[in-house]
Amino acid sequence: MKQNLIFTNDVENAISHLIADSNHNMTVCIADVNTARFALGKERLIVIPDGDTGKSLATVCRVWDALEEFGATRHSLVINLGGGMVTDLGGFAAATFKRGMRFINVPTTLLGAVDAAVGGKTGFNYNGLKNEIGAFSPASDVIISTRYFDTLPIQELKSGYAEVIKHAMLDDRDEFLRLLEHDFNAPINHDNLLEHLRHSVQVKVDIVARDPHEQGERKALNLGHTVGHALESLAMQRGKPVPHGYAVAWGLVTEAILSHIILKFPSEDVHRLGNFVRDNYRGFPFTCDDYDDLLALMHHDKKSRDGEITCTLLATIGDYRIDQTVTPDDVTAALDILRDHLGL
Amino acid sequence: MKQNLIFTNDVENAISHLIADSNHNMTVCIADVNTARFALGKERLIVIPDGDTGKSLATVCRVWDALEEFGATRHSLVINLGGGMVTDLGGFAAATFKRGMRFINVPTTLLGAVDAAVGGKTGFNYNGLKNEIGAFSPASDVIISTRYFDTLPIQELKSGYAEVIKHAMLDDRDEFLRLLEHDFNAPINHDNLLEHLRHSVQVKVDIVARDPHEQGERKALNLGHTVGHALESLAMQRGKPVPHGYAVAWGLVTEAILSHIILKFPSEDVHRLGNFVRDNYRGFPFTCDDYDDLLALMHHDKKSRDGEITCTLLATIGDYRIDQTVTPDDVTAALDILRDHLGL
Repeated sequence: MKQNLIFTNDVENAISHLIADSNHNMTVCIADVNTARFALGKERLIVIPDGDTGKSLATVCRVWDALEEFGATRHSLVINLGGGMVTDLGGFAAATFKRGMRFINVPTTLLGAVDAAVGGKTGFNYNGLKNEIGAFSPASDVIISTRYFDTLPIQELKSGYAEVIKHAMLDDRDEFLRLLEHDFNAPINHDNLLEHLRHSVQVKVDIVARDPHEQGERKALNLGHTVGHALESLAMQRGKPVPHGYAVAWGLVTEAILSHIILKFPSEDVHRLGNFVRDNYRGFPFTCDDYDDLLALMHHDKKSRDGEITCTLLATIGDYRIDQTVTPDDVTAALDILRDHLGL
Repeated sequence: MKQNLIFTNDVENAISHLIADSNHNMTVCIADVNTARFALGKERLIVIPDGDTGKSLATVCRVWDALEEFGATRHSLVINLGGGMVTDLGGFAAATFKRGMRFINVPTTLLGAVDAAVGGKTGFNYNGLKNEIGAFSPASDVIISTRYFDTLPIQELKSGYAEVIKHAMLDDRDEFLRLLEHDFNAPINHDNLLEHLRHSVQVKVDIVARDPHEQGERKALNLGHTVGHALESLAMQRGKPVPHGYAVAWGLVTEAILSHIILKFPSEDVHRLGNFVRDNYRGFPFTCDDYDDLLALMHHDKKSRDGEITCTLLATIGDYRIDQTVTPDDVTAALDILRDHLGL
């Protein structure tokens, strides 16, 4: 589970070095319809659909068939160039073709850079269930850059930024406070953002290293997601989907409130986070009439056991506690405070 | 890559202990149409087709769908009960369902016990290529017994026994000589055979532990298989398939002859092995007219590089050398001697 992380905005150079240092007989790039234009042009190219509906077994088979057709072997190299869908699905296809080829990830979205591309989770949707089939199989190298972010929709940037905030909440209050100073209306300061990414990714890497197969401590990374996933699923069911990171942002505030109720997490930090989310992640589309449905979704979360609602909570920024059981009343109270804070 | 090996003929007891010691919410047994009758009856059962044609993506999907339908989770346990097809395919399905459930292997054939069930290779056939898609993912436990062997066809037993001989040739001359005393006409001596299995499996386990992903030393286990696979493939192409282990037995003799030519492997041991194979593995269906086709197949072996024919060869029993290049003339000479020895 060793993963080489390269932080650079000179991606071509980093890839060229990786290829020159290795002994591969062929390089194949997997990209989606949006990211194919970023390919270096020297590799063979497999273009797959974008979006979650294309994250299917049929697409995996297309990748296997193309690898076959190119004559790729165990000594070939795959480059996954794209967002989380490309790195998840391309990683799975590469990890299983001839029982595994080397692959490197080049995430092109902020969310991909701080979450999907690092840590070894690969997979695809099956029978309508997200990431139902997959493997823990890390990319040998991940090249993390901000150079693809200038053309990202602002919603995409904000969505990824929620995970950056999450990582800081698990680790370091100074970084957390610096992140909340961010202004999404200003042009991207690439050097600055790359530094934040370096910090953020390291938090995930350290936690994953201690628990590669999600047996325990890795659940820390679930901060904000017990509530966030329920909000995301309900929005999807209602036909009004919200970006994953927006749901996570609302989930982070809700679970910070729960942390305050249960573990005396400082209200000062709840407020700072709540203000940032209120100002930047508008559009929370729920009322108190939705609480029963949200609680039902939390009960069915794949990480919960025995029908209890469990979250990762914080005693302070950086001091996390996994497997915290929360009652429906606690959740209801926290959602009330959240809605109040967001001015709903 | 830690694998717990249990050698016993009280399989029910061993499984009961494994289940009792664990904290699983459900046990699912995967078996084929022949081995389903060996299921304990307490588990949920998934029955898949037998034979190589059923080792397909469609069968993998059937297993995933059944796991889904049963409500299996990451905390459920899979028992693969069958030959190599069941442990390979069931292992892959379990290793990828929700990114991986625990599974244990209970091989019911000699070949499965000494080869497929141990070492972590899983997979299925794809686009007409054997084991083209798969993963290195070891069963947590393997229960090795001889109790299913009494009803095995003699061809099946002999087929597996060739791999037992191969392991001894990589390790220990005394064991090699003991194995050649075996009489396939006598009833199975279960205690005796279980001891041989213990020895044989340990050879594989030790080699795999030093090279889990087949980067180098694991190629030692390919002894007999460069020639053996070519013989097996040609027989298949001609519509006269031979059991895998028969092809391996002939391959072992041929590669022992090559070892004698190239590394001065003692001719005495070539003769002992040759006599045993002549007496027990009849039916070698090739003539010198087939040499060109056999050489072409050896050139295309997925483990060969740069169009050379490479084998694992022996200097003496136990002293193996991987990546040995052999010339077409050497192979032709060795096949001549083999046919002469087999009395063809």
